[in-house]
Amino acid sequence: MKTIAIINGPNLDRLGLREPEVYGRATLADLERELKAEAATLGVELSFFQSNHEGAIIDQFAALASAGVAGVVINPGGLTHTSVALRDAIAGSGLPTVEVHISNIHAREEFRRQSVTAGACVGAIAGLGFGGYALALRFLARRD
Amino acid sequence: MKTIAIINGPNLDRLGLREPEVYGRATLADLERELKAEAATLGVELSFFQSNHEGAIIDQFAALASAGVAGVVINPGGLTHTSVALRDAIAGSGLPTVEVHISNIHAREEFRRQSVTAGACVGAIAGLGFGGYALALRFLARRD
Amino acid sequence: MKTIAIINGPNLDRLGLREPEVYGRATLADLERELKAEAATLGVELSFFQSNHEGAIIDQFAALASAGVAGVVINPGGLTHTSVALRDAIAGSGLPTVEVHISNIHAREEFRRQSVTAGACVGAIAGLGFGGYALALRFLARRD
Amino acid sequence: MKTIAIINGPNLDRLGLREPEVYGRATLADLERELKAEAATLGVELSFFQSNHEGAIIDQFAALASAGVAGVVINPGGLTHTSVALRDAIAGSGLPTVEVHISNIHAREEFRRQSVTAGACVGAIAGLGFGGYALALRFLARRD
Amino acid sequence: MKTIAIINGPNLDRLGLREPEVYGRATLADLERELKAEAATLGVELSFFQSNHEGAIIDQFAALASAGVAGVVINPGGLTHTSVALRDAIAGSGLPTVEVHISNIHAREEFRRQSVTAGACVGAIAGLGFGGYALALRFLARRD
Amino acid sequence: MKTIAIINGPNLDRLGLREPEVYGRATLADLERELKAEAATLGVELSFFQSNHEGAIIDQFAALASAGVAGVVINPGGLTHTSVALRDAIAGSGLPTVEVHISNIHAREEFRRQSVTAGACVGAIAGLGFGGYALALRFLARRD
Amino acid sequence: MKTIAIINGPNLDRLGLREPEVYGRATLADLERELKAEAATLGVELSFFQSNHEGAIIDQFAALASAGVAGVVINPGGLTHTSVALRDAIAGSGLPTVEVHISNIHAREEFRRQSVTAGACVGAIAGLGFGGYALALRFLARRD
Amino acid sequence: MKTIAIINGPNLDRLGLREPEVYGRATLADLERELKAEAATLGVELSFFQSNHEGAIIDQFAALASAGVAGVVINPGGLTHTSVALRDAIAGSGLPTVEVHISNIHAREEFRRQSVTAGACVGAIAGLGFGGYALALRFLARRD
Amino acid sequence: MKTIAIINGPNLDRLGLREPEVYGRATLADLERELKAEAATLGVELSFFQSNHEGAIIDQFAALASAGVAGVVINPGGLTHTSVALRDAIAGSGLPTVEVHISNIHAREEFRRQSVTAGACVGAIAGLGFGGYALALRFLARRD
Amino acid sequence: MKTIAIINGPNLDRLGLREPEVYGRATLADLERELKAEAATLGVELSFFQSNHEGAIIDQFAALASAGVAGVVINPGGLTHTSVALRDAIAGSGLPTVEVHISNIHAREEFRRQSVTAGACVGAIAGLGFGGYALALRFLARRD
Amino acid sequence: MKTIAIINGPNLDRLGLREPEVYGRATLADLERELKAEAATLGVELSFFQSNHEGAIIDQFAALASAGVAGVVINPGGLTHTSVALRDAIAGSGLPTVEVHISNIHAREEFRRQSVTAGACVGAIAGLGFGGYALALRFLARRD
Amino acid sequence: MKTIAIINGPNLDRLGLREPEVYGRATLADLERELKAEAATLGVELSFFQSNHEGAIIDQFAALASAGVAGVVINPGGLTHTSVALRDAIAGSGLPTVEVHISNIHAREEFRRQSVTAGACVGAIAGLGFGGYALALRFLARRD
Repeated sequence: MKTIAIINGPNLDRLGLREPEVYGRATLADLERELKAEAATLGVELSFFQSNHEGAIIDQFAALASAGVAGVVINPGGLTHTSVALRDAIAGSGLPTVEVHISNIHAREEFRRQSVTAGACVGAIAGLGFGGYALALRFLARRD
Repeated sequence: MKTIAIINGPNLDRLGLREPEVYGRATLADLERELKAEAATLGVELSFFQSNHEGAIIDQFAALASAGVAGVVINPGGLTHTSVALRDAIAGSGLPTVEVHISNIHAREEFRRQSVTAGACVGAIAGLGFGGYALALRFLARRD
Repeated sequence: MKTIAIINGPNLDRLGLREPEVYGRATLADLERELKAEAATLGVELSFFQSNHEGAIIDQFAALASAGVAGVVINPGGLTHTSVALRDAIAGSGLPTVEVHISNIHAREEFRRQSVTAGACVGAIAGLGFGGYALALRFLARRD
Repeated sequence: MKTIAIINGPNLDRLGLREPEVYGRATLADLERELKAEAATLGVELSFFQSNHEGAIIDQFAALASAGVAGVVINPGGLTHTSVALRDAIAGSGLPTVEVHISNIHAREEFRRQSVTAGACVGAIAGLGFGGYALALRFLARRD
Repeated sequence: MKTIAIINGPNLDRLGLREPEVYGRATLADLERELKAEAATLGVELSFFQSNHEGAIIDQFAALASAGVAGVVINPGGLTHTSVALRDAIAGSGLPTVEVHISNIHAREEFRRQSVTAGACVGAIAGLGFGGYALALRFLARRD
Repeated sequence: MKTIAIINGPNLDRLGLREPEVYGRATLADLERELKAEAATLGVELSFFQSNHEGAIIDQFAALASAGVAGVVINPGGLTHTSVALRDAIAGSGLPTVEVHISNIHAREEFRRQSVTAGACVGAIAGLGFGGYALALRFLARRD
Repeated sequence: MKTIAIINGPNLDRLGLREPEVYGRATLADLERELKAEAATLGVELSFFQSNHEGAIIDQFAALASAGVAGVVINPGGLTHTSVALRDAIAGSGLPTVEVHISNIHAREEFRRQSVTAGACVGAIAGLGFGGYALALRFLARRD
Repeated sequence: MKTIAIINGPNLDRLGLREPEVYGRATLADLERELKAEAATLGVELSFFQSNHEGAIIDQFAALASAGVAGVVINPGGLTHTSVALRDAIAGSGLPTVEVHISNIHAREEFRRQSVTAGACVGAIAGLGFGGYALALRFLARRD
Repeated sequence: MKTIAIINGPNLDRLGLREPEVYGRATLADLERELKAEAATLGVELSFFQSNHEGAIIDQFAALASAGVAGVVINPGGLTHTSVALRDAIAGSGLPTVEVHISNIHAREEFRRQSVTAGACVGAIAGLGFGGYALALRFLARRD
Repeated sequence: MKTIAIINGPNLDRLGLREPEVYGRATLADLERELKAEAATLGVELSFFQSNHEGAIIDQFAALASAGVAGVVINPGGLTHTSVALRDAIAGSGLPTVEVHISNIHAREEFRRQSVTAGACVGAIAGLGFGGYALALRFLARRD
Repeated sequence: MKTIAIINGPNLDRLGLREPEVYGRATLADLERELKAEAATLGVELSFFQSNHEGAIIDQFAALASAGVAGVVINPGGLTHTSVALRDAIAGSGLPTVEVHISNIHAREEFRRQSVTAGACVGAIAGLGFGGYALALRFLARRD
Repeated sequence: MKTIAIINGPNLDRLGLREPEVYGRATLADLERELKAEAATLGVELSFFQSNHEGAIIDQFAALASAGVAGVVINPGGLTHTSVALRDAIAGSGLPTVEVHISNIHAREEFRRQSVTAGACVGAIAGLGFGGYALALRFLARRD
């Protein structure tokens, strides 16, 4: 059975608590519950990781590359727009990775409209709420 | 039963014929067949439209707004990066729209990394091949 | 009796239907009725043209140049900010043209603050609602 | 009876004397005479103010806001492209203001193509010569 | 016998009528006559196409790719500087294409100095008047 | 006893009248009253100056430099973002100066996020409302 | 009794040791001693936190939001100019935060003149040395 | 006998008092004395004007244009880099004007390296200290 | 009999030796032989000049202007993108000049996509290999 | 005996595993072995540190500054291009530091061509593979 | 007796022959004759040097630095806007140098408005024709 | 025995004479003596070349490519930041080349922070004084 990793970056531990008018009221636990249900349907296993530390996420990519998961769904939070180091970690892991954003970054402030990290991913999904994670999961589960 | 519109912009009639090393060998007809199968599963109807004319796509948005479809999946092709008029048409239609790109625009030439049109959409999916259309369809079908 | 052409570009067929909080509830038909009344007062005839096709508007400029109208009032919609081809058509027609925008483009998103097409016009009016068309009409009617 | 203020900024006292190939040979006095005739037709009163001093124009906006005029027509001259302070004064006055330029700023040097002040106005008219003032006046007179 | 396609974009139907001080007094018909004479010398056949519609030109590229012509000479007019969709159409056709400009775009306004479309062509010729078309034709005729 | 000068630039005479949703309802007189109370506590004297004229503020800096005050608190209003001449006046006076902004300029429009004048000051305080003036005053009063 | 948190970012543990000609010779311990004295006067309690880790500071904001402190004084050090993730943490905490810089960032290298994080704060104080912290503390203590 | 006007802009009344390490210790009175001696040699009369007010300098240009002086030597101070209104005044006066800077603006901060006003002058002299004024005077005196 | 000069700039002496995958295996001598054959057909004489020295090429333009050749074909190599001095030499010679590039500069690195020198030429040809020289020669030979 | 510290930043723990076509197949352990051999020759001691955490590297600089090593060789990985905080740590440590990159950053993507951190170092070496570390070590060992 | 060197850069050997509508009809020999007359009056000797070769001018600066002239007047022609190497030569010579331009570079094309070389000079004179050289000479002759 | 070429560009003949506070007091002869000693140790021969002429250095690269040296150490001086022609010469020679700068270009003026030429080299060393040459030599000597 395939394992797919779900990584959430800085501030996503505060989902539901933080700016609910932008990100909604559901929490990270709610998200993980939804994704587990979806994974059951798709016949894959999930591993979850959340950190506010760029370095810890980079460490995690190295660990996942060694462990050999089938793919990664990542929401890099604010690191999306600034972290060359995280981009290098994604590229270096060799793991197929899909970037997800809950809100539509293309319609927000200027400094959120470009993604540094997405260039090292297979692709990106933005603005579809929690649904974006489920869709990315489905994409990786069905990919051979 | 909900209807969801699938719109393909300039050059997508040439899918499978055009730069197959970038876009793959499957044709627009193949894509439509896949989406119909997916739609059956999801219990929605589809309408298809392809044009190389910016104006014709804008007309189509007006027509769809009058007809009252449940959502639109659009791949604006090269118009993505320049067409304010199409952006206005999307915004003006009031229809929930998801932008899809077959390739990962974030990893291509500089002038393909920004989307003018996505700012008027609910969100965007890039780099997931034909799968991106199916995921967008699923998102719109499940949305209330 | 002078004839003055009124050209409306992409999405202006949707006036009154599209983003009424920005553009108001009056329709293109309402606009044309108002302009006809104004034209009667000014003693000029009007011709109307609306298209969502950049190419069709360029064709129309060629036709008007042959027909020899006294001037053109144009709202290029989203083409304002990108269309060098339309700018060339305006310049190439040799017709005195006034650009009109219903909303104040100077106070909107960054990408709407510059006009590519206005450089080929006699001048431009922005932000005065439907009134801007009537004023442009009056300017062209009184000009010798 | 409504009063509308006409404000002319730096160098417009030199109209007719200065670069007549760009701005024409008519003087500021000629302009004011034309506008008075137009005002009589429209049934409004006018007040005139010209200054080469940014600060004096800002003072004038404060005075007009207290006096309660119905609107302002302003040609900010060279301040158009640089004065955030004047923009703040227009916004702070709460008075409906229309910006006017005699020449078509969209077709001149790069540094004249953007207006800092127009973002705080209702709208702007450029390139229609003295006629632009009369049209702005008419717009404000007819506005309720 | 080889066939080479000659495509003229927006406003080139107005050759000879439009800004003759920039583009000269000869018409599109004159150009086509000259090119036919040149083609006779070179032993190739020509097909001609002119449109003011970006979409129609893109359709034409798809048609030519199916028909299998030996090469294309294109003057994209104002689309040169903005149309990613046309660039995609050229690239997607797989046809050797030479871009031609009558005037020297390198010596004109800033916004005309870069070509978006030329990046998908074999090469480009600018500033050599009608002669540029003939030279491009000769290049394609002699190429194996 | 030390004297500290309080200088308010363009439009700050309109405090409480102008855009109260941004700047609040308290007036310049209210501000001066609050600062006098604070000055009494701190054992310093105050001089007040407000002008909408860049030149008058520059004159004032020259006068204060001759008079030898202990420091200056300045809110340059819209001049903050544009006036090299005022920057030169602050630097040229040799007086320790603290720049104050009522609103948080870092969270406003792009053109308000950089300060030209603060580079010639000791430092700057933004976004703390009237409180910013009191804190700047306290800083200068306590400084030896 | 209110608690106010004092957060110091990267390299501020090296105060007094690092580039004393820019930042002075007093240490972080000296700063904390000064602030405690000030807090006693103001009748508030303080909590101190310093870290060179972006992630640890983001964690701390989440902790403080749960604990419910009355406000935060932060000097983000070099993260000021680059960290969107920290900006999101400040905004997401909902805590009134004042940004402080010891030196005047407006008078330093280009890359230090813009603050990414200040846009999510109530306001910012720069260039007033240790005094800036005390003033920020006073502002938050007096705020209701 | 020819009259030549010497105009000094903002902060030049503070020469000798202000930043002597940049501008030297000689005062404006010293400069005027030196220029009078030079004028005597050249057989021309001088008029002097200094103001910190942009508007007053613009007024002065209008007055000099009416009075008909033979030329103007201007040091616009900080207005050099920002004032489109002053540039317009110079151009509008029709008077041959030479711009002078005491220090070498090409070797100072980025924002001092471009001159907005020099584009409307005959030419410009920078970095030659007081000597620059004398040379500009000589140029205008010898010019016919 | 007309003489036309062929000038090759830096590194073109290395044709055939240097990066053959970009520039082909034919040498400068091969190119000159081809052009001589073409010249014979066209009834013109050729002069050849190659240098790696910007100054020598500028000297050559002065010599050719004195000698009175009928036109110049130049491939400025890497100087294309940087040399204002060469641009001035071309403009100053008054000789009709056509710029040629072997590869398609529009499809290469960012810094090769703009030509400084082409603005002073009659026109430019890029991407047509050695054929571009022959076409430029033909253009100049046929021009009267 | 001098000690020199070798610091490797994010993702360099993955050397040999990550993108071997760019970085080669040798591992971090291989690198450290090579450097130990070199150090023996040079008569210096080495300390090694690798971390994916910006904060941990900053902490390490503080520790090394206290410990008093003779110099630092650092490869900051992706932090090179973004981390002002790391730049401050290098500058704040007072330790002579040489920046090393395995690949030639000048020949890679635009965003890798500038180094934020190198401005605080003695110098930088790029593109010489593992050899760059050895050279930096030699430089610091021989420096007095 | 002091010697002052006059250096003219690329294309200035063509003065009077090249674009006389921009640079006038007088030749380099005329200029040198005028300057000799001026030098006689000032009691200084002149040496003249003109070259179209950047390298030769740099060599000349080294030679003049060894010879020990009292100053240099240079018109770098097109090198002004591009040559960092020439800037370094001027700075490296330690010779007081004044840059001269015949035309007013501030009123010409964008790429001529900035000087790379002037930052290493004492100052610069532009737009005063041949007179600019004479004034620069006078400045250096009188300087001690 | 391998030969390695040492090339020094513009102004490096003036080492020790020119701006010694930036570049030190040792001369080019001193540098060459140091490198000869190093070469003896490494068992390689050296050839030296210095020129202030871009063209001469390009010629030298062609000569070295023919002669077949084992590598090149180049300090391009001011050409580093501007010369595309030199970049082409390095690439075209096919010789492994290491770029060296005596000072740390990353810590100097903006226009010195990017290298045009380094993109065609194996790598680059900056800021290590004369030592940088020796290290580059060692790198090339040890490379197979």
